[in-house]
Amino acid sequence: MENFTYYSPTLYEFGRGAEEKTGMLTFLTGATKVMIVYGQKYAKTSGLVDRVANSLRTIGIDFVELGGVKPNPEAALVYEGIKRGRAAHIDGLLAIGGGSVIDTAKAIAAGIGYKGDFWDFYTGKTPIEEALPVGVVLTVPGAGSEGSGNSVISHTDEEGVVAKISLRTDSILKPRFAVMNPEMTFTLSGYQTAVGIVDMMSHIMERYFSNTTRVEVSDRLAEGLLMSLIAEGPKALADPTDYQARANVEWAGTLAHNGIVGCGRREDWTSHAMEHEISALYPNVAHGAGLAVVFPAWMAFMAHHKPSKVAQLGRRIFDVDVKDDRSAAIETVASLRAFYSVALRMPLTFKELGIENPDIDTMVTRLHINKGETIGGYYRLTAADTRQIYELMKGE
Amino acid sequence: MENFTYYSPTLYEFGRGAEEKTGMLTFLTGATKVMIVYGQKYAKTSGLVDRVANSLRTIGIDFVELGGVKPNPEAALVYEGIKRGRAAHIDGLLAIGGGSVIDTAKAIAAGIGYKGDFWDFYTGKTPIEEALPVGVVLTVPGAGSEGSGNSVISHTDEEGVVAKISLRTDSILKPRFAVMNPEMTFTLSGYQTAVGIVDMMSHIMERYFSNTTRVEVSDRLAEGLLMSLIAEGPKALADPTDYQARANVEWAGTLAHNGIVGCGRREDWTSHAMEHEISALYPNVAHGAGLAVVFPAWMAFMAHHKPSKVAQLGRRIFDVDVKDDRSAAIETVASLRAFYSVALRMPLTFKELGIENPDIDTMVTRLHINKGETIGGYYRLTAADTRQIYELMKGE
Repeated sequence: MENFTYYSPTLYEFGRGAEEKTGMLTFLTGATKVMIVYGQKYAKTSGLVDRVANSLRTIGIDFVELGGVKPNPEAALVYEGIKRGRAAHIDGLLAIGGGSVIDTAKAIAAGIGYKGDFWDFYTGKTPIEEALPVGVVLTVPGAGSEGSGNSVISHTDEEGVVAKISLRTDSILKPRFAVMNPEMTFTLSGYQTAVGIVDMMSHIMERYFSNTTRVEVSDRLAEGLLMSLIAEGPKALADPTDYQARANVEWAGTLAHNGIVGCGRREDWTSHAMEHEISALYPNVAHGAGLAVVFPAWMAFMAHHKPSKVAQLGRRIFDVDVKDDRSAAIETVASLRAFYSVALRMPLTFKELGIENPDIDTMVTRLHINKGETIGGYYRLTAADTRQIYELMKGE
Repeated sequence: MENFTYYSPTLYEFGRGAEEKTGMLTFLTGATKVMIVYGQKYAKTSGLVDRVANSLRTIGIDFVELGGVKPNPEAALVYEGIKRGRAAHIDGLLAIGGGSVIDTAKAIAAGIGYKGDFWDFYTGKTPIEEALPVGVVLTVPGAGSEGSGNSVISHTDEEGVVAKISLRTDSILKPRFAVMNPEMTFTLSGYQTAVGIVDMMSHIMERYFSNTTRVEVSDRLAEGLLMSLIAEGPKALADPTDYQARANVEWAGTLAHNGIVGCGRREDWTSHAMEHEISALYPNVAHGAGLAVVFPAWMAFMAHHKPSKVAQLGRRIFDVDVKDDRSAAIETVASLRAFYSVALRMPLTFKELGIENPDIDTMVTRLHINKGETIGGYYRLTAADTRQIYELMKGE
């Protein structure tokens, strides 16, 4: 176990009717006028924005609205939010939605008091020092932004080149509160639910696969969350209105990414980076679906190069009962693949992702330009290695 | 899963050298002059108080000292602390020690700005509305007060009658930060280490044994923490300077009691209440040692009256492989007993606690006067039931 600082000051208000407390929770952040940020459909058409607005009115908090956030949120809307937020003299943000909406609200919260371009924080040009308080009403579990200090925004330059950057902060951008009513997730499709679950499981596993030894507490918490998702995820798919399944999945998704399973160890975000190169080239690929393809391939490579922790995972969560580490790791990969493809109906290959002729050359080149000659913490991967992992995703 | 609010704003600074950050962390609470509260020996003789004092001086924070806190901390020292703290115009508390020291600091933090008697908060006469910020440098893991909003203080009235009351707050008394350097626990004896581990495991199990169904996430986290303690605890006993074992035990102890494993369910603190009656009558009994006797007896009773969750625990953490719930529960109790007595060298019976003729009549009577005619959440216990459980502790 290595030294760590853990600070997770977000208040989670969880359960049926939790959204009614939004006004009071916003009041407690000290805000008097907030910008309500939301997406393109659900928040508005379901009447949720109106209900939240009423909760704010009751307690005397003024607000303006900013709708229309899209998946892979764009800097353009952040600029608009900053402009309108300044004009309205807001002193807080309230995000109603999933990761894209929350990340947009965080970007506005950071940019509004800063004289320069908010994008400076994302490029690393300027360190972020203050931000308006952000509250969240979560409607799409998966990204984990409700409990994290991160924000991912895509920025398109004048030549049309898109840069998608994840800004990571220790606590400045952590939401002050997150209202989580699992009933709000009943209308998510099976596909949306499944990609959320894969994203959650990836957040856990990127922390789990670590070179740091003797992290028994963090390992057991990670394994426990994975087992919860494996048990409850398929129930949420089978019956979208199974409140208890939805509740367990949603809560696991928050804990997957609020840092608790990373305590005391170096994390390894290679699979996320490898997936980013896929969805950068093939923008129709949902992040979670891409991860369902990448992670088992990454683990299959590790089964041959460093099987120990893959084997531990399988023995502890999939009841793998083989002594030899390599064989146990191979069985673990098979179990994970079966869970993704059979239980969650997720793709496992480029072909199933809808990519007939994957441009692996470009992905490998960009990956190592972005991340360095060798990448990874659990095991250092050269370009030849990452090529091999991408090749495995062909599934031939 | 039931509705819940989870708010754990304590910053944990964990690892070797963490205490050097005490000054900076205290500064971030806004305090300018703190009272350093500590116990009778280790904090002072080890030089820790001086090192922390230097860390405060470096950053320009003034301080006064209040030493001499004893186990089962008394109101008398709280009154003294409030008086001296007011005279010195302190605006923060810094506890260096374990549960007793932290609980004393919390009581002073609550009482110092209150015109009446601080004990009003504990008796429920007055709700607590504000408190000075409390920081912690943890030297004795187990009680979990570094991450909880609770404070247990004993108050002796004019006739010499002792009332030991646990004040529970949602967040007002939660420490702002906890500095945790596992090296500080190297000098704890095997006995101190073991009673701490039993206390931690009890904190987890009192939350685990719940009537609330479909709490898969919280169940898995609880089981994970228990497995960590079962794996790492004996290593800390075998080699008191095994940093990694100490670190895993200490971190598990915080998570055992900061509320994370209780999310979404009704808890059942019957075993803690039953133990309190033992240590009230026999003050030499350490809380953790008493719990090692009570908990297996309570579980043995449940094996015959409501075995389901006892069986689940055993199957998941002790590899119990029996289909019938009652048999599985009985095996679980045997496994827990073996762990407590063999691995931790803890007592399992009144006799091993040093009590030859336990006054079960008085304990049962007081228990039900204090807690009601029937007690417990997982299973409602009558006086006849609790008597039977106490009888089981005779081990005959």
